[in-house]
Amino acid sequence: MRLRDTSEVEFLRGVRQLLGEAGGRVRLGIGDDAAVIDCPPGRSLVLTCDASVEGRHFRREWLSPHEIGERAVRCALSDLAAMGAEPAAILLTLIISPDEDAALAQGLIEGGAQAAETFGARLAGGETVGREGPLELDVVATGFVEPGRELTRSGACPGDVVMVSGTLGDSAAGLAALTGTWDAVAGSAGTLAGSGGSRRRSWDRAHPCAHAVEAVIARYKRPEPRLALGQLLGRSDAVHAAIDISDGLARDAGHLAEQSGVAIVLHTETIPLSTECRTLAEHLGLDPLPWALTGGEDFELLFCVRSDAAPAIARLAHDSLGLPLTTIGEVTEGHGVCVMHPDGTDLPLRQGGWDQFRST
Amino acid sequence: MRLRDTSEVEFLRGVRQLLGEAGGRVRLGIGDDAAVIDCPPGRSLVLTCDASVEGRHFRREWLSPHEIGERAVRCALSDLAAMGAEPAAILLTLIISPDEDAALAQGLIEGGAQAAETFGARLAGGETVGREGPLELDVVATGFVEPGRELTRSGACPGDVVMVSGTLGDSAAGLAALTGTWDAVAGSAGTLAGSGGSRRRSWDRAHPCAHAVEAVIARYKRPEPRLALGQLLGRSDAVHAAIDISDGLARDAGHLAEQSGVAIVLHTETIPLSTECRTLAEHLGLDPLPWALTGGEDFELLFCVRSDAAPAIARLAHDSLGLPLTTIGEVTEGHGVCVMHPDGTDLPLRQGGWDQFRST
Repeated sequence: MRLRDTSEVEFLRGVRQLLGEAGGRVRLGIGDDAAVIDCPPGRSLVLTCDASVEGRHFRREWLSPHEIGERAVRCALSDLAAMGAEPAAILLTLIISPDEDAALAQGLIEGGAQAAETFGARLAGGETVGREGPLELDVVATGFVEPGRELTRSGACPGDVVMVSGTLGDSAAGLAALTGTWDAVAGSAGTLAGSGGSRRRSWDRAHPCAHAVEAVIARYKRPEPRLALGQLLGRSDAVHAAIDISDGLARDAGHLAEQSGVAIVLHTETIPLSTECRTLAEHLGLDPLPWALTGGEDFELLFCVRSDAAPAIARLAHDSLGLPLTTIGEVTEGHGVCVMHPDGTDLPLRQGGWDQFRST
Repeated sequence: MRLRDTSEVEFLRGVRQLLGEAGGRVRLGIGDDAAVIDCPPGRSLVLTCDASVEGRHFRREWLSPHEIGERAVRCALSDLAAMGAEPAAILLTLIISPDEDAALAQGLIEGGAQAAETFGARLAGGETVGREGPLELDVVATGFVEPGRELTRSGACPGDVVMVSGTLGDSAAGLAALTGTWDAVAGSAGTLAGSGGSRRRSWDRAHPCAHAVEAVIARYKRPEPRLALGQLLGRSDAVHAAIDISDGLARDAGHLAEQSGVAIVLHTETIPLSTECRTLAEHLGLDPLPWALTGGEDFELLFCVRSDAAPAIARLAHDSLGLPLTTIGEVTEGHGVCVMHPDGTDLPLRQGGWDQFRST
């Protein structure tokens, strides 16, 4: 049934049934003028919002409604991870054409609610706004942090080393697989709107790269907000600054450098790439590095830490979270980001990665 | 300069300059992965979001960029008023075409920041997302309330009287003046998209209604979130349920009735109308009642209160806030809303007021 043929009141009744009673920190959930959340004593509120726009951040042929909702909430939660916060409540607003099926809206909400639950948060409200045009999901994520323990972008010091969690470039490779634009890897955002998937290759399951393709597509579809790592880093005085990689390594390192008033040097040979990413790049005869440097949406944490503390933190993340951390550079006096090759030349950075206004 | 020709980093630098350092409860504002807000001890968080979409909630020919930003934030703050919360921090996300002028974006943000300041909150972050299509402002409003003192929609009891603040219908009359669709007053939302203002009448300053037109347009342009009243009502045990009137009196009374599991009877002759609203309706030969019943966006508070406590609350609101409260009905057993004429007939309620999916 189309949303136009249902009433908002009936629709909301369905959503409330779907989500059940308030719980966790959410004292009052969907159905009132606002949500009411219990604040844990002695904690600060961490508050962020993140919009997912059809054609810009996702396409319906790539993701089911459930996956679109799940992805939107996971992306928003990554901002909480980058602050070292513990998630509490999520609001999800759908901007959707009244001609869409109510089942689409329900799928989006179910996916969002499930992502919230997965990470210890709860879907506590939101809005549904009818308008023509591309589907849009606006997510508000809230969490709590011990005052002074929040990770910011602004504390990096010369002498710190730069570390990153997990592997980079998989999400961009997955996006390239979905769009079929393997070589248009710089600025994945920009390629989304322009390319119609016309050159999509079909990957037979028997193809030697089939597993690798599935793996990188899964990284695009279901990003992992590094919430436990963020909280672990927030407890250490040696961690001076952090950001999640949503715009691409080069650009996000730039945000860290700018906010901290320092320069960051990255070494290309140390950037962690997954086996799948390497396999695919090799098969395609491509350099995987641009996926990692400018692809974006890896949602790994990039952080600056006192150099003598780095090994212990890497050990702790490995032992308690099973998550590898890699040292990929260092903080120096100056400004900007320099990406160095092993032979000592520096990589001229293409104007890539996510930029909300530019498409190249 | 078009947004496309500026960079996000430069744009954000401008925004930070505009908004200055963090302050109030906002410990960390714009420029990081999330905002950090100090929670006052022993308070609960109240959290809401509200989207303003061009063509649906406003048109650029009616409002300056500053006014659009201001209005979007004022509307979101009204949800906090309806909960009895004290505002703390606002996030403002702009969804805007990269071809728009950067001055438009700045005007929107300035307006939003000013509305926040006016009501004791602070603009603490947000996002700017480039996409083609209608302009959109997504506002997140946060505030705090003493646990258990929040006003909800669900506590109305049979025997309560129904009260409303201020006057109703002005915003719908203002919208009708702006669109020139004086008679299409039921469901102001629905008329917005369809009517091109083609029948707009020009109001000479010398016209006897010129002042009234200006006054009702101002009510549409700059809604007043009843924050002080909400907090006053929240302190009284006699106030059992509340909502802000955004969808129209009839529909919002319906929300209260549904959430409380009661029926609400409203008496048309008691509904408070401004002199300006009456003057205009008389001049146009229209009944002003539909503006009040189904027009929406008055952002007055509608609440249910123990009948013996109503006079004291009205006196308190008058004396401390200069705000008139009017008793317009009562709560009974049953369900739904009944609108009674003085002669004892009940008004068949048109399917009007805001509905996100329907346009009639």
